[in-house]
Amino acid sequence: MAVNEIFQYSIISALMDGVASKGLPVSDLISHGNQGLGTFRYMVGEMIILDGKLYQMKSDNTVTPIDTSPASDAVAPFAMITRFQPTATIKAAFSNKKELFEHLSQDFPDSKNFFLAIRIEGVFKGITVRTAGGQSKPGEGLVEVGKHQASHTFEEPVRGTVVGFRSPEYTMGISVAGDHLHFITEDRTQGGHILSFGTDGEVEIGAAQISKWHVELPTNDPEFNKAALEGDKEGIAAVEG
Amino acid sequence: MAVNEIFQYSIISALMDGVASKGLPVSDLISHGNQGLGTFRYMVGEMIILDGKLYQMKSDNTVTPIDTSPASDAVAPFAMITRFQPTATIKAAFSNKKELFEHLSQDFPDSKNFFLAIRIEGVFKGITVRTAGGQSKPGEGLVEVGKHQASHTFEEPVRGTVVGFRSPEYTMGISVAGDHLHFITEDRTQGGHILSFGTDGEVEIGAAQISKWHVELPTNDPEFNKAALEGDKEGIAAVEG
Repeated sequence: MAVNEIFQYSIISALMDGVASKGLPVSDLISHGNQGLGTFRYMVGEMIILDGKLYQMKSDNTVTPIDTSPASDAVAPFAMITRFQPTATIKAAFSNKKELFEHLSQDFPDSKNFFLAIRIEGVFKGITVRTAGGQSKPGEGLVEVGKHQASHTFEEPVRGTVVGFRSPEYTMGISVAGDHLHFITEDRTQGGHILSFGTDGEVEIGAAQISKWHVELPTNDPEFNKAALEGDKEGIAAVEG
Repeated sequence: MAVNEIFQYSIISALMDGVASKGLPVSDLISHGNQGLGTFRYMVGEMIILDGKLYQMKSDNTVTPIDTSPASDAVAPFAMITRFQPTATIKAAFSNKKELFEHLSQDFPDSKNFFLAIRIEGVFKGITVRTAGGQSKPGEGLVEVGKHQASHTFEEPVRGTVVGFRSPEYTMGISVAGDHLHFITEDRTQGGHILSFGTDGEVEIGAAQISKWHVELPTNDPEFNKAALEGDKEGIAAVEG
C-alpha cells in the first residue's frame, strides 16, 4: 500500500456485536503499514503500531511487543493501519481533545470529510487511558467488555507517543467516527486507548489527510456472518470515542 | 486490483448533496475493473460498465459508448467497479427483485454482511428503468435530480444484461445499501437504472461475494469538502433502491 492510505480490517460494529474470536494475522496486518491501532483476539488489551512495531497493552498494566512474523499466532479482530508520512507537522499545546482537533482543523481546513492519520510526540499531562480486559465469554459485545475495562490516569506528566485516526462522520459503524487515539509511553511499558489528555507544553503533532480507504471484511468467520452490524452509533461513541 | 474486489469512487451521500461537478476520469476508473455502474458529470444519465466497455445511458433514450482512453474528458462523480469473476452461476426465473435476492441468498447463505457483485444475462419482462436527466444547476442534490428523471418501461420482453451490486446495510450513506442494478439491452441501444424487473423464463445469474472494498474520496473538489454528507438513509433508498 502506498503512503497515507488506510487499510482497515473488519468494522467497528462487528466489535460492538462481539465478533472477536478470530481476526487477521498480525503478519498480514503489518504488511499494509507501519502505524495504527486495533485490538486482539477476545478484545484482550489495546493494539498500537508505531514505526512498524506492534504492541499489546493490557489491563494488568503490562505492555508486550508482539511478534509480527508469519510464525506469530496473534490476530486482530479489528485494526486500522497506514504507512504514515505526515504532510503537516506543527508544534502546539492543548489541554483536551477538542483543542487538539481545533489545531488540526486549522492545518487541514477542508478535511472534515476525509480521514486524518495522526502521530503526536511529547510530554502529556492528565492523560487517562483504558485497556480492555477482554471478553468474559466469546461473543460478548464491546459495551459489555467496556464495563470491566481498566482505566489508568497518569499522575505525573509522561513522555510518549499518541497514534491514531480521525474518521469522517459518515464512516460511523464501519470506522470510529471522530477521534480514535492510542497512547504508549516512551519506554514502551504503559499505555492504552486514550479517554482524555492534554499536553505539558508544546508537543509535535504530525498528521496526514487520507482519501484512500481499503476495507477488508472477515471471511470464514461464522460470528461475523451472523452479526447484526446495526451500528449502535451512541454505543460506539460512548465506548470508543 | 485482483478479481472480485470493489473499487468505489466517492460516496453516495455526496451525490445526495449534489457533488457532481467533478469526478474520477473514466480512464482511471476503468483501470480498476471491467464491470460496474455509476454516474457522469452533473448526473447526466446512468453509467454501466460491462466487459470493460463503458456506456452512458441518457434520459433522451440514447446509449453512447464512452471513450475510456486517457484522452477522454468523461468523469464519474460516483462509481463502483469490480474485476468480475462469478463464483456461482445459476439459472433461475424471478418476477421481482425480492425473488432474485432470495435466489442469491440461497446460493450465498452467509453473505448478508458482504457485497455481492452481480451480472444477469437473459430476457427480461416488465423491466422499468430510469435515467437521470442531470442537474438543472451545479450542486443540485440527487433527490431533486430524481424529480426530473425519465422512466421507461419496456412493453415487450427484452434481451440484455443487468450489472450491479448488493451492498450490506452498514454501508448505507457510503454505498447504496441493498441492491443497485443497471440494465442495458443486448444491442446496447437502451437501458438505465433498474426500478423493477422480472424475467421471461430462466436467465443466467452470475455472482461473486466480495470482502475487499476500496474507497477513494474526491480530492481537490470544493463541493465534496463542504458537503454535509449526513446520509439521508430514506432518501437514498427512495432514489437509488
